[in-house]
Amino acid sequence: MQPMSEFTYRRRVTFPETDATGIVHFSNFFRYIEEAETAMWRAAGLPLVSDGTVWWPRVHAAFDYKRPLRFEDEFDVRVRVVEKTAKALRYAVEMRKGDELIGTGALTVVCAIKGPDGTLKAADMSADVATRLVVATS
Amino acid sequence: MQPMSEFTYRRRVTFPETDATGIVHFSNFFRYIEEAETAMWRAAGLPLVSDGTVWWPRVHAAFDYKRPLRFEDEFDVRVRVVEKTAKALRYAVEMRKGDELIGTGALTVVCAIKGPDGTLKAADMSADVATRLVVATS
Amino acid sequence: MQPMSEFTYRRRVTFPETDATGIVHFSNFFRYIEEAETAMWRAAGLPLVSDGTVWWPRVHAAFDYKRPLRFEDEFDVRVRVVEKTAKALRYAVEMRKGDELIGTGALTVVCAIKGPDGTLKAADMSADVATRLVVATS
Amino acid sequence: MQPMSEFTYRRRVTFPETDATGIVHFSNFFRYIEEAETAMWRAAGLPLVSDGTVWWPRVHAAFDYKRPLRFEDEFDVRVRVVEKTAKALRYAVEMRKGDELIGTGALTVVCAIKGPDGTLKAADMSADVATRLVVATS
Repeated sequence: MQPMSEFTYRRRVTFPETDATGIVHFSNFFRYIEEAETAMWRAAGLPLVSDGTVWWPRVHAAFDYKRPLRFEDEFDVRVRVVEKTAKALRYAVEMRKGDELIGTGALTVVCAIKGPDGTLKAADMSADVATRLVVATS
Repeated sequence: MQPMSEFTYRRRVTFPETDATGIVHFSNFFRYIEEAETAMWRAAGLPLVSDGTVWWPRVHAAFDYKRPLRFEDEFDVRVRVVEKTAKALRYAVEMRKGDELIGTGALTVVCAIKGPDGTLKAADMSADVATRLVVATS
Repeated sequence: MQPMSEFTYRRRVTFPETDATGIVHFSNFFRYIEEAETAMWRAAGLPLVSDGTVWWPRVHAAFDYKRPLRFEDEFDVRVRVVEKTAKALRYAVEMRKGDELIGTGALTVVCAIKGPDGTLKAADMSADVATRLVVATS
Repeated sequence: MQPMSEFTYRRRVTFPETDATGIVHFSNFFRYIEEAETAMWRAAGLPLVSDGTVWWPRVHAAFDYKRPLRFEDEFDVRVRVVEKTAKALRYAVEMRKGDELIGTGALTVVCAIKGPDGTLKAADMSADVATRLVVATS
């Protein structure tokens, strides 16, 4: 399997994702970003369902909103790996509806191991993840 | 601590709970019901946070919608224990905004133990729960 | 376009739909049902995005939970029109993951017109809807 | 009424806000921030429910996650107005559970008017808002 550094995920807005303004609630954009990340991992053949020990908590998330999304809008979420350390990945995100830029964002996730007391501690990512997700060159 | 058979929980509508119709999305009423159940258990001095073995999966949920709720509306969710077996509790629910009936519902929950394989199996509820939550007489 | 009386919608569980039990939160099943309804309307060529006057508020929703769904599970939601009046539609719902029955449910929706004061009032559905969505015969 | 520049909002984690990791899903922190903003506006005597013309779309949101929140955790969201222009407000956010820092964030919102075609256009905020919400001095 080829290493991946970016992925584009297509999605449609569902009704409960909208709010009384008639547009998608701003918090849901972060769910879209995570779904795109999940889709990239799936495409890279990486395990999505945790064995209960390794998790990938989010340590930073940000989004700049340019244009709203509405019910039934179809849009693309493009995630790119823009930084990688032994323990962390940083994605840059671009959301578009056709040619229209909906917004841009960032997400940083850290590999963590859940101890017997339930707390999470940063840990080196597996060779599998390190090999299959690589920093985008452009 | 007195046994309890009903509880009234007050809540205000938040913005992401509304949808593009301008009213609370119908799925969120089930979250309100569960919050009221949680508040009742807290008031009854019952453990809300699982030790990881005992859970209370929901086996039936229903709601009849009479009037909509909107952003910032303050409303009351009244839950009453209307049936109790060794393993299950059934609540009747009434939601009101002031005098106005918003809707009525029902929720049935079952005590379950999580096995080593992660599956849930029905089990007798603890003496604590059985003693503190009793069927409403009226 | 052929009249439709049922539709099967395929979906995958996303991460925020799960809760600390490790399974999909019970309120989200109602969102899955609505998504399936939306997909059926789309397949029937019916307008999904309101012109701001006609809405379809939900008046009854119910679900019986048989088996849990977990992150990344792929499942099918089958909605069938089981009753139709001039103003209302009732759907029966069956959710499956492969051969496994996840649960069954019901949803009743009513055609409504939003008055100038913002309140919704039941109204006859359009000929389009009445023609394209018909009661399942089996 | 005194002008306000900050507000602390207390909240408890509900069950559907958690995910299969056992902690609050990262997207929900943005809902907490908005709830705190709403509570500040309410405390400042400012209108929360739109008349349908004036809205406050979010143009930037960010959060740095330090410690997780779990079901039933009680926590504080402190929002402070840190910048104000004729059309926009920027809040700095700090979330704590007792003494423990949960995370810090930022939110920028813009006053907008909905045109007859439904699109939002930036506009000067009302004198009421400009007078009652002022930049924090420390």
